[in-house]
Amino acid sequence: MKYYLEVQFTLSGPLPDESKEEIEELLKLFAEKTQESRDKGEFEFTQWNTKDNKLDITISSIDSLTPHVAVLRLRKQLAATLGKKYRVGLRGFNFVKYTIETELEDKPVKEFSLPLVNKLEFFEKEGKNYAKLDIDPEIEEDFVEKGAIERIVRRVGEKISKQHYGAKSEHHQISWYSGEKKHFTDENPTQLMQKANWIQRTNYRNQWILTPTLTTLAEALKQIMVDYVYEPLGFNQMMIPKLVDWSIWLRSEHAEGIYQGGFEPYFVVQPNSADPEYFEEIADYITITKTIPSEKLAEKVSAPIGGLSYAQCPPFWSWLQGKTVAKESLPIKVYDWSGPTYRYESGSAYGFERVDELHRIETLFIGSPEQTKEIGMQVKDKLRVIFEEVLDLEVREAKVTPWWLQQSAHEDEMDSAEDLVVGTIDYEAYMPYRGKREESEWLEIQNISIIGQKYPKGFSVKAEGNIELWSGCGGGSFERFLTAFVSQKGLDKNNWSEKFLKYIDKLPEPVKFH
Amino acid sequence: MKYYLEVQFTLSGPLPDESKEEIEELLKLFAEKTQESRDKGEFEFTQWNTKDNKLDITISSIDSLTPHVAVLRLRKQLAATLGKKYRVGLRGFNFVKYTIETELEDKPVKEFSLPLVNKLEFFEKEGKNYAKLDIDPEIEEDFVEKGAIERIVRRVGEKISKQHYGAKSEHHQISWYSGEKKHFTDENPTQLMQKANWIQRTNYRNQWILTPTLTTLAEALKQIMVDYVYEPLGFNQMMIPKLVDWSIWLRSEHAEGIYQGGFEPYFVVQPNSADPEYFEEIADYITITKTIPSEKLAEKVSAPIGGLSYAQCPPFWSWLQGKTVAKESLPIKVYDWSGPTYRYESGSAYGFERVDELHRIETLFIGSPEQTKEIGMQVKDKLRVIFEEVLDLEVREAKVTPWWLQQSAHEDEMDSAEDLVVGTIDYEAYMPYRGKREESEWLEIQNISIIGQKYPKGFSVKAEGNIELWSGCGGGSFERFLTAFVSQKGLDKNNWSEKFLKYIDKLPEPVKFH
Repeated sequence: MKYYLEVQFTLSGPLPDESKEEIEELLKLFAEKTQESRDKGEFEFTQWNTKDNKLDITISSIDSLTPHVAVLRLRKQLAATLGKKYRVGLRGFNFVKYTIETELEDKPVKEFSLPLVNKLEFFEKEGKNYAKLDIDPEIEEDFVEKGAIERIVRRVGEKISKQHYGAKSEHHQISWYSGEKKHFTDENPTQLMQKANWIQRTNYRNQWILTPTLTTLAEALKQIMVDYVYEPLGFNQMMIPKLVDWSIWLRSEHAEGIYQGGFEPYFVVQPNSADPEYFEEIADYITITKTIPSEKLAEKVSAPIGGLSYAQCPPFWSWLQGKTVAKESLPIKVYDWSGPTYRYESGSAYGFERVDELHRIETLFIGSPEQTKEIGMQVKDKLRVIFEEVLDLEVREAKVTPWWLQQSAHEDEMDSAEDLVVGTIDYEAYMPYRGKREESEWLEIQNISIIGQKYPKGFSVKAEGNIELWSGCGGGSFERFLTAFVSQKGLDKNNWSEKFLKYIDKLPEPVKFH
Repeated sequence: MKYYLEVQFTLSGPLPDESKEEIEELLKLFAEKTQESRDKGEFEFTQWNTKDNKLDITISSIDSLTPHVAVLRLRKQLAATLGKKYRVGLRGFNFVKYTIETELEDKPVKEFSLPLVNKLEFFEKEGKNYAKLDIDPEIEEDFVEKGAIERIVRRVGEKISKQHYGAKSEHHQISWYSGEKKHFTDENPTQLMQKANWIQRTNYRNQWILTPTLTTLAEALKQIMVDYVYEPLGFNQMMIPKLVDWSIWLRSEHAEGIYQGGFEPYFVVQPNSADPEYFEEIADYITITKTIPSEKLAEKVSAPIGGLSYAQCPPFWSWLQGKTVAKESLPIKVYDWSGPTYRYESGSAYGFERVDELHRIETLFIGSPEQTKEIGMQVKDKLRVIFEEVLDLEVREAKVTPWWLQQSAHEDEMDSAEDLVVGTIDYEAYMPYRGKREESEWLEIQNISIIGQKYPKGFSVKAEGNIELWSGCGGGSFERFLTAFVSQKGLDKNNWSEKFLKYIDKLPEPVKFH
C-alpha cells in the first residue's frame, strides 16, 4: 500500500518563528518512532511549512502507518506542544490531496466508482493489479476518525470480488433427513387454500388475508412451539419493537447491504409536521376528489427514518444496547411473534410461501459461547421433533452459511466440525407439487443460527465478569409452515397427524360468499 | 344556490346545419322537463352555438338541477341524437366557466381556499352570507362524474363550521361506574414499570421494549379476553393485514381526515426499483461512512403507498370487499392481535399510556342491525366483568360519539335511547397519581362501538337476501390496560386480584444489568 497525503492544519493564529524548530523535531521523532515500531515499510514527512494560520504537511508512506492515522495522532501532539507554549490552538485539518495505491487480488471486471473517492483508477505493473484512489478532500474529519478510509480501501476489493464471483453462493450440505413420508396431494398448496377460502389475496402486492380458519392452524402451531420448544427449554415470550429506525440497522449491519440481495426493506416516513393546517389542503383534496395527491403528499413527508421489521432480532438489541448483563440473568432466552415482518419481494405475484407481509416466530438466545451453542443444539433437536413427529412432515436439515454470517463472522468462529459452531441450519420441506424429491426445490421453513459475537459487538453489549457474549436465533413463518404442511397433507383433517389435531379444538368453517 | 356554467363539448367533426333545429329542440325539452319535475327554482339554457367541432352551451340555474349534472345527462342525449343521425361523435366536455353561489349558515372567520376552486369569495346580501366559487375549468370529467362538485360545495360549509366550533367536541356521558376500589400506589405507573425494568424506552420516539415480564402480563390479559369474551361469545381469532394501502383508507374515509385530528398515520414507501445496482452507491456510502445518506435515499423511494395499521379494523374489510356474505355465515365475529398499530404522537415524549407503537386487541363483528346491536351489548357486559371483577379496577363507562362516527353515521342510526344504537362506549380507568377522582383525567382503556352501515357501505359488502349489514368493533391496548392496572394496583403481586393471578404461572424475573 502506497500513500501520499497533503494535509493542511488550520491554526488559531500564525506560528512564531521560534516554534519551527520544535515542530521540525516533533515530526522527526514521530517518523523515527513510526519507523522503529515496524519491521518494514517507509514512513516520511516529505515536507512541511507554515504561513499565516496554516500548517501544511506532506506525508508519504509505503506499507507503513497510514498518513491519515498519523494526522490524527499528530493533531494531539501538535495541539499539546503549540497550545501550551505558544498559545496557538489547532482548529482542525483538511486534506489537500490524498492518494492511495493498493494491490488487488483480481482485476476488476468493469470500472466502478465509490463515495468519497474522486477518482478511482486501475492499472497493472509487473504482472500485478493495483487501484489508485484519490480521496475526496472534502471528506469529514469524523468520518476519517471513525475508519472511513480503511473501509473505502476494503470496499474496492469487495466490489471486485463480487464482480468476479457474484454474491457468494450459500454453502449447503444436507445433515439430516426425516425419510420419505406419505403425502396426500400433489397440488399447489396456495391454490388449494385459496379455493377453500382459507386465505385470500388482498389488493396489495403479496399480502394475504389470514382467515379465522387459517389463523386457527397458526395458533395451533404457536402452541406446539410453546409446548415442545419454549416451555421445556425455559424461553420467555416478549414483544420486540417492529418499527426499526436506522440506528438499529446500522448496528446490525443490515443497512450496509440495502437492496444488495438479502435485505429488501419497506421504508417508513414521518410527516414533516403534524399540524392539521400543514395537511389541510391534502385533506380537502382527498375529501373532494376521493383520490390521493401522491406528489403533494410526498413533499410533506420526511426521508425514510428506517423501516418495517425485516427480521425480528435486530430491534431486540436496543434493549441490551450499551449495557452489561448480570451473570445471573444469562442465558437470556426469548421468543417473539408480536407482529408481522416485511420484505419487498420484487417481480410478479407469488404464492403463500413468498409474501411481503409474513408472520414469523423468532427464537433468540444470548449467553456465553458454550451456553449459546448448547441452546442452539437443543432448539434444533426440538424443532426436529415438531416437524417430523408432531406434524409428520418430510423434511431435511441443511447446514448453510448465509450472507449475513459470511459478511461478519470471524473465521475462527465458523463452523468446521460436526457440531454447529457459528453457522446456520435450515429446515427444508419437500413440496410434492414441485416434482420429484431429487430434482425439485424444497421449501425452507425454519432456520436456526449461531451468530457468535456479531450482535453483542454491534450493540456494545457486555456481560458481568467479561464473559464473552454470543447470540443465536431462528425464525420460521406460519405462511411457510402451513404451505409446506398443506403441500404434503392437503386440506382434509383425516390425513393430518393425531398429534397436530390435538391442538385444534374446532376448525372454523370458512365464511361463505354468494 | 345559484349556478352559472359555460361548457364546451368537443365533437368528432363539425355539425351539419340541419342538426341545429334538433339541438334547439332537445335543449328546450330538457329545460322544460327539468322545470316540470321541480316545484321551484329556475333552470335555463341561456345560449348555445356551435362552430367547427365545438358546441358551446351556457346554463344558468337557481335552486334547480345543477348544471354539471345537466351536462352529464345532456352528454348522453346529445351523443345519441348526433351519433345516430349525423355520425358526429361526442369526444368530451370541458368547463369554460363555472361559478356557484351558495348561502352559508355562518360567515367565515377567515378566508380559505379549496382544491379545484380557482377563486372563493364571501359576501353578504340582505343580511345573509354567501360564498361564490369559481370552479377550476381544468377539473377532470371523472371527478365531476364522481361527485367532486357536490363535495366542494359541502366542504365550504364544513370548513366554516370548523372555524367556528373547532373539531366537534365529543359528547361524553358517564353511563356506569364500578364504584371506588382500593388502590395501592399513587405513583406514576410508567416510572414504576421503568424502574422495575419491566419496560424500557428505545432510541425511537414513544416506542418501548416490552420485556418478558411485561409480556407475561400482556399474555395473561389476552387469555382473560379469550376466556371471558371471545370463547363464550363465539369469536374466532384472525390475523388482519397490518400494512394498509390507500385504497383501504379511502374506503374507510380515514384518508379524508389525514392529520386533521383523529388520524395521524405513519407512512410506508417502497423502493423505486429493487435492482441492487440502483442502490449500490447508497450501500457503498453506508458501508464506508456508517451513516445514512437521507437525501439520496429519499430520491430512490416512492410517494407513500399507504401506511402502518392505525386501527386494525379497516384492512379487515378488504376480505369482504365487493362480496355478498351468505346468511349462514352471519354474524361474523373475529378478534385480532396479530401485530402493533401505529400513531404519530406529536410533541414531546409521553408515558407508556401514549405510545407511537401500540399493541391492541381488536374485536370486530358484522351482521344484521339486530345481531350487531346484541353482540355489542354482550361484549360490553363481558368487558365490564373483566375490568371490574377479574382485574378489580376502578373504571367507568362513558357514552361518547367520536369524530369518525359524527362524520359518517346517518342521523337516524344515531344513539338516542337507553341502548347503544350507533355510537361508542369508552371504558375509562381512574389513575390515582393524577389526583382526585372528580378532578383528574381518567385513562381511556377500551372502547366498543356500533358503527352502523359505514363499513359495509364503504367496502361494498352485501348480505344474502338483502339483509342490511352493520358492523361494530372495539379496541384496547395492552399498554393502556397495564398502565391503568399498575396505576391502581402497583407492582406487588400480593395486591393483585386472585382472578388475575390465576392467569400468571410465573412472572419472569427482570433481566439485571450492572
